[in-house]
Amino acid sequence: MKSEIIAVGSEMLTPVRQDTNSLYLTGKLNELGIAVIFKTIVGDRLQDLASVIRTALGRTDIVVLIGGLGPTEDDITREAVAEALSLSLRRDAAQVAALHARAAAWRRSMSANNLKQADVIDGAVVLPNPNGSAPGQWLDVAFGGFRKLILLIPGPPNECRPLFDIECLPRLSAIVPKRFIAKRTLRAAMIPESQADSLLAPIYTAYEDVETTILAHAGDIQFTLLCAKPNLEAARQRVDELAGRMEEALEDWLYSNNGDTLEQIVLYYLGLRQATLAIAESCTGGMISQRITSVPGASRSFLGGAVVYWDELKTTFADVSPALILQYGSVSAEVAKALAQGIRLRTGAALGVGVTGIAGPTGGTSVKPVGRVYIAVSDAQKSETIERTFRGDRDRIREWTTQQALDLIRRWLM
Amino acid sequence: MKSEIIAVGSEMLTPVRQDTNSLYLTGKLNELGIAVIFKTIVGDRLQDLASVIRTALGRTDIVVLIGGLGPTEDDITREAVAEALSLSLRRDAAQVAALHARAAAWRRSMSANNLKQADVIDGAVVLPNPNGSAPGQWLDVAFGGFRKLILLIPGPPNECRPLFDIECLPRLSAIVPKRFIAKRTLRAAMIPESQADSLLAPIYTAYEDVETTILAHAGDIQFTLLCAKPNLEAARQRVDELAGRMEEALEDWLYSNNGDTLEQIVLYYLGLRQATLAIAESCTGGMISQRITSVPGASRSFLGGAVVYWDELKTTFADVSPALILQYGSVSAEVAKALAQGIRLRTGAALGVGVTGIAGPTGGTSVKPVGRVYIAVSDAQKSETIERTFRGDRDRIREWTTQQALDLIRRWLM
Repeated sequence: MKSEIIAVGSEMLTPVRQDTNSLYLTGKLNELGIAVIFKTIVGDRLQDLASVIRTALGRTDIVVLIGGLGPTEDDITREAVAEALSLSLRRDAAQVAALHARAAAWRRSMSANNLKQADVIDGAVVLPNPNGSAPGQWLDVAFGGFRKLILLIPGPPNECRPLFDIECLPRLSAIVPKRFIAKRTLRAAMIPESQADSLLAPIYTAYEDVETTILAHAGDIQFTLLCAKPNLEAARQRVDELAGRMEEALEDWLYSNNGDTLEQIVLYYLGLRQATLAIAESCTGGMISQRITSVPGASRSFLGGAVVYWDELKTTFADVSPALILQYGSVSAEVAKALAQGIRLRTGAALGVGVTGIAGPTGGTSVKPVGRVYIAVSDAQKSETIERTFRGDRDRIREWTTQQALDLIRRWLM
Repeated sequence: MKSEIIAVGSEMLTPVRQDTNSLYLTGKLNELGIAVIFKTIVGDRLQDLASVIRTALGRTDIVVLIGGLGPTEDDITREAVAEALSLSLRRDAAQVAALHARAAAWRRSMSANNLKQADVIDGAVVLPNPNGSAPGQWLDVAFGGFRKLILLIPGPPNECRPLFDIECLPRLSAIVPKRFIAKRTLRAAMIPESQADSLLAPIYTAYEDVETTILAHAGDIQFTLLCAKPNLEAARQRVDELAGRMEEALEDWLYSNNGDTLEQIVLYYLGLRQATLAIAESCTGGMISQRITSVPGASRSFLGGAVVYWDELKTTFADVSPALILQYGSVSAEVAKALAQGIRLRTGAALGVGVTGIAGPTGGTSVKPVGRVYIAVSDAQKSETIERTFRGDRDRIREWTTQQALDLIRRWLM
C-alpha cells in the first residue's frame, strides 16, 4: 500500500519553518508496511489544496493530511477535502456540544469561528483529539474506481502524534495485511563515513528484505535495520543476522547495538565499573558535561567539573601550574593531561578528563591550526592523551571534539 | 512570480532524513520577490518524478529541482525532465572532458556511469558546480502556451547552495522585476507566546506590505520583518516604522533589533561594562556556559566556571557551606545565591551566576516539583535570586532554565 503525506500551512513555505510531523508519521506508516511515496507541502488556499488532494488520490491509496483543522479563516482542510470529492460538510451536533463544554471548562467565551471545528465531511468518522479542540477525521471513499482512504490530522505535534497513534494506527492495522516488524539500531563513533560505507555497504545491500537507513552527524553514525514479515521470528532472524555481521565489521567503532546514545553508554560503563567522572573543559565550554547530564540519572556517576575558559581557572580549578601553561601553551598535550589529572584529584573522581583546543575562527597558528584539540583521560594509575585536528566552523569543531572526548572515555572504560 | 521546489531522493521519504535545502532556497527566492507556493518530495522513480514535474509546470512559473544529478542508477532528474517535456538528452563533450580532468586531478579512475553527469537536456544552459562533479542546468521552455523556467540543482548542501547563489541568483534577478529588500530581525526573551501575539498581531497585521514571520523556541521569540519595493528607501522606511512600533510594544522583553542572539547580547553588555562573568551551574550541567562559549571571542568576558553536579562540588568549587545545603536543600534560593557569590569570589569575576534545579524526570517533591529552578546573579554590591517552575521534559526544562539565566544576566547588565 502506498501513501502520500500532505502538510498544510503557508508557514511551512517560508524559509524558517519546516514540517516535522511527516517524519514521525512516516516511521509509523512504514512499520505497518505502508510506504510514503510522495510528500507535498501546500499553503492555506482552498483551490491549491483541493487540487493537491485530487492528485494524491490519483497516485496513492492513503492520503494523510496534516494541519489546517483549527478555527481560523486560514484553516481550510475540511473544506478542501469536501471540494476535491464534491462531498458536503455537516455541522456535527455532538462536536458542537464538545466545543462548548471545552470552552466552559477553560472559562473562555467561544467565537462563532470556533464552530468550524465541528464540521464533518459527509461519511467521515470523527477522531477525538486528546490534546486539542479540533478533532481528526477518517474518510473511506471511492475515487476513480478504487477505494481510497483520507486521514485529516491536526497540525500541532502534541495533537498530531497522539491522535495518530491512538485513533489511526489501530484502524490502519486492521486493514493492511498483518506484518510483524523487527528493528535494531546500531551506533558507531568516530569512524569516517566513507570507511563505514565501504565496510558495510557490501554487507547490508545483500539483505534486500531488511531496510537499512544511515544517519551521520558529527562523528556519530546510526544504522537502523528494519524488516517486516508475516512472521515475527523470521523478521527478527533476518535483522539479527544482518546486525551480527555489521557489528563484526564495525569492530570497536560500534558502541551500541540497541540505539543507546554515546553519553548513555559512557554512563553505563561508569556504573558497571562503579567509577565516577569529572571533566575540565576549555574549548568545548561545557558541551561535554551538558551532553552527559542530558541523560536522566547521570548524577550517579558524573560529579561535575569545571569550564576552564581562562588560563587562570585552569590553575584555580584543576591545579595546572602556570609554568606548565607558559612552557607548552594552554592548547597542548601537557596541559590537557594536567587538566585531567588536576580535576580528578580536586574532585575525588576515579576518572578525570581534560580538553583544550582552538575552536576558532581565530587563534590558530601554523603549528597549531584552528581545529587542533588535545583530549586527556586519567585515573590513579595512568593517563592517555590524544591530538586531533578537526575541520569546519566553530560549532562543528566543538561538536566533533565533544564526540571524540566521549568516545575516548568509552574506550578507556571498555 | 510563483515557484515550486521539488526535492528528489527516496532517502527524504524515510523517517530520518529531511530536505533542508528548500529552506535556504526559499529565503533566496523570497528576497527576489518569487513566492514558493508548493514543495514536493519525490523518490527516485522516473515516472513519478516526470509526472510531478508536469504538475509543477502546470501551476507555477519556476520549477526548482534539487537532487538526483549524481552518477548512480538512482540519479534520474535529467532523464525525468527530458521525459516530462519530450526533449532529448545529449552527452556534452565539454562536460565529458571536465569529468575526466576532475577524475585525473583526484587520481581516480572514472566508471562509465560517471558520464551520465555530462548529459545535458536539449536547450539547457550548463551551470558549473563549484564543489562537485555534477553540473546544474537552467532550462527555459514553453509549456501549455506559457514560458516556464526549470532549474536543476545538485542535492548536497555544499553544492546546492553556492551553485544557486553564484549561477542562479544573478540570472533570476535579470528576469524578475527589480525590487529592493529591507529586512530586520527583532528578538525577545521569556515573553509568553500568547502575550507576544496579543501585543503584536494588531500592529504587524496593519502592515500588509511587510511580511512578518515569527519563530519561537524555548523562551526565545524571533520576528523577521521583510519588505520588498521598487524603491529601497520606501522599503526601509516601512520596515523601520513597523520595527519601531514593535520594539515599543515589546518594551524590555526585546533584547535585539538586529538579529543578535541572547548570548551575543550578554557578551556585548559585559564588554560595554568591562565586566567579567563566571557561572556555577548544577541542573543545566554546562548548557549555559556552552551557549556563551558558542560565540567567537567569548573569552574576552567569560572566565569559565564550574559544573557543580554533586553537592560536594558546590563546596569544592564555589565554597557553598555544607550546612547551608543541609538546611535548605541543594535546590533552593539560598544555595543558588551562595553559588553565585562563591563562583564570583573564587574566580575573581565581576559577576557570578548560580543555577540549581530539578530537571527530572525524577527528584521532584510536592514542595519542589520537577521543573523548579533557582537562578541567582551576584556582584560585589548585591544579589538577585529568582524562582521559576518550567513544564515539560528534561531537555525542555534545561533549555528554558538556560534561556532564563541568560535573560537574567542581560537584565542585570542593562
